[in-house]
Amino acid sequence: MSRASIPMPREQLERIVRQVVRQRFAERLAAGEPQLAAAYEPNLVVNISARHLHVTPENLVRLFGPGAELTVYRWLYQPGEFAAEQTVTILGPRRRVIEHVRILGPVRRATQVEISHTDAIALGIDAPVRRSGRIDGTPGCVLIGPAGVVELSQGVIRAERHVHLGPADAAAYGFADGQRVRLRVLGDCPTTFEGVLCRVDPRFLLEVHLDTDEGNACNLVAATGVELSA
Amino acid sequence: MSRASIPMPREQLERIVRQVVRQRFAERLAAGEPQLAAAYEPNLVVNISARHLHVTPENLVRLFGPGAELTVYRWLYQPGEFAAEQTVTILGPRRRVIEHVRILGPVRRATQVEISHTDAIALGIDAPVRRSGRIDGTPGCVLIGPAGVVELSQGVIRAERHVHLGPADAAAYGFADGQRVRLRVLGDCPTTFEGVLCRVDPRFLLEVHLDTDEGNACNLVAATGVELSA
Repeated sequence: MSRASIPMPREQLERIVRQVVRQRFAERLAAGEPQLAAAYEPNLVVNISARHLHVTPENLVRLFGPGAELTVYRWLYQPGEFAAEQTVTILGPRRRVIEHVRILGPVRRATQVEISHTDAIALGIDAPVRRSGRIDGTPGCVLIGPAGVVELSQGVIRAERHVHLGPADAAAYGFADGQRVRLRVLGDCPTTFEGVLCRVDPRFLLEVHLDTDEGNACNLVAATGVELSA
Repeated sequence: MSRASIPMPREQLERIVRQVVRQRFAERLAAGEPQLAAAYEPNLVVNISARHLHVTPENLVRLFGPGAELTVYRWLYQPGEFAAEQTVTILGPRRRVIEHVRILGPVRRATQVEISHTDAIALGIDAPVRRSGRIDGTPGCVLIGPAGVVELSQGVIRAERHVHLGPADAAAYGFADGQRVRLRVLGDCPTTFEGVLCRVDPRFLLEVHLDTDEGNACNLVAATGVELSA
């Protein structure tokens, strides 16, 4: 099944349309119509990123064979991002493995494996907390695909908790790119995650990414409310 | 190996002596020497409770055979509490299992299984967040020991985050039994756990119990500081 054969769901299309509207809005805001900020209602979404990896085109071919391309299993909340049908096995030192780890598409310039602290303990890999893309000096692992094996010398991280914001979202909250903010999750395990990294980009929808340990610690699926604050 | 054959480590003995001193201190404080409060320095300890269970004497015999007694594997921080050498297998619906789940001693009046949210997902058991002992209406599971099987009709919980305090600790913080407080954990995954239940008892040493999800979410083992506040 090719990627193009899975139509983008209506929900995803609507999100992209809203994103275009928001982007237009942000441009008008930046052009000096600050009274618009009061009218904008950010739509805060908090999602759990389960363990996954990003791969380079070269590593994709090594793992899945010549001509391999990522195909869509499920579209993600951020426009253009998707969980691929392709999964790999991660092999850590001492021959411990985690199977069925999903690749997220599209392909990237560096291969990067994002696992929780619980996964890191299970694999026996001392994965540092890093923002996406900052993998210098991180541990490696072995990736096993149906067509071959990739020995990574680095790239295994615990992704730092972060929030994606469009410019209009950032303006509404008064947050800047790179700022650290707090996410409060209400419910039966109320928790405030501090040091949440703001990543502002015109392509982004407002979405916090926690890992499974964080999501389970606060029982996110049963949360009664979520709040972002400086 | 009998329980008596494991000597209490020096560290544990020292803690108990300190506890007696603190207890004496709390009595003087209660008797009207409030100037003492300023002199008292609470020693805050935060520990992760890995999955475990408490058992009744009847269930212990069913699992480990006639005459079975819990024997000490490791003394815990709270005086008299210990991780036993005995472990069981937990069997959930859909035949999923977790092996090597340790019993904590001494035996209790009700059998209770305490697991993380991650464990609950793995087992397929919808374990509610409950304080220890409040197991009415909770799900059950099957326990498998070397000598037999116990079918629990209830008792599987996710233990609510809590803090054990002696009376002197409670006085120093100004906390009352049953009060909800906050634990802030500093480090590379800074997190504030809210709704931490205070349990005040003269037998207790000051200690917060988090589960593995909470401990992993805040990277407790690498924490640079911990703070309790109202």
